[in-house]
Amino acid sequence: MPGRMSADPSLEPLRAQLARIPQVHAMQIRVDGVVDGRMCLHAPLAPNVNDKGSAFGGSLVSLLTLAGWSLATWRLLRASLQAEVYVADSQVRYLAPLYDALQAEAWLEEGDWDTFVRTFAERGRARCRIAARIALPDGADATTFSGRFVALARG
Amino acid sequence: MPGRMSADPSLEPLRAQLARIPQVHAMQIRVDGVVDGRMCLHAPLAPNVNDKGSAFGGSLVSLLTLAGWSLATWRLLRASLQAEVYVADSQVRYLAPLYDALQAEAWLEEGDWDTFVRTFAERGRARCRIAARIALPDGADATTFSGRFVALARG
Repeated sequence: MPGRMSADPSLEPLRAQLARIPQVHAMQIRVDGVVDGRMCLHAPLAPNVNDKGSAFGGSLVSLLTLAGWSLATWRLLRASLQAEVYVADSQVRYLAPLYDALQAEAWLEEGDWDTFVRTFAERGRARCRIAARIALPDGADATTFSGRFVALARG
Repeated sequence: MPGRMSADPSLEPLRAQLARIPQVHAMQIRVDGVVDGRMCLHAPLAPNVNDKGSAFGGSLVSLLTLAGWSLATWRLLRASLQAEVYVADSQVRYLAPLYDALQAEAWLEEGDWDTFVRTFAERGRARCRIAARIALPDGADATTFSGRFVALARG
């Protein structure tokens, strides 16, 4: 659904960064955009299916991790800050099998982005906790995620 | 390193099941075998690299999850039990960046396999907690995993 893709120019550096990751191509991941502060990523089922016809657990957790990473990275890119963002830890719950495309959304779970961006700008280092989910077609949770991310100044 | 691959015939049904998962091919995952009760999976760095030249977080967690899933699945296959194994939840810690191939090993974290297999045979349902790790070339932990898996009778 190219119609869902956001033309927001602030997403282009993020898309360019993601395009350098081979698994982003293998999973056919697409950045749909940011809606109400939530980073939305999409991946079709076919390249991400398991042997049972539902979404592969590895693809679910990979997409959730990448959605969180993308949100933190985009917040810094938008502030014209050059950072390396790393995932530090994560907890994932697999609640129901998904037999449809993978739609992930990620949002800040604690604190606020202004503090995160200001802390990074001042110290060259900042942490945040991000939540994410992949929904079933009826809107209920298929898989939920909570993870900590660390941004470090480059070089 | 084909020389590291185990010829254990009990691994063939597991390899056949994994071969039906597209991401197993995309990540070039190989089942090396079971050493001291630990399921060992391997994936080369090139298809699993991030934009910084180290292992992609999504590939690390995907391989760890699959190593745990493979261990529980193999234990049931070896007992000639037909099961669907699902990951229920997981916690992952990313401790150090990895600039080398991804070598994962998974082992039973709590309880014993005899109880797991007997519970499944009697009730058509069993749970287990599996730990896993991906090592740095010097043997220290790059990424650690703990997750619960559920086996359900088919059909």
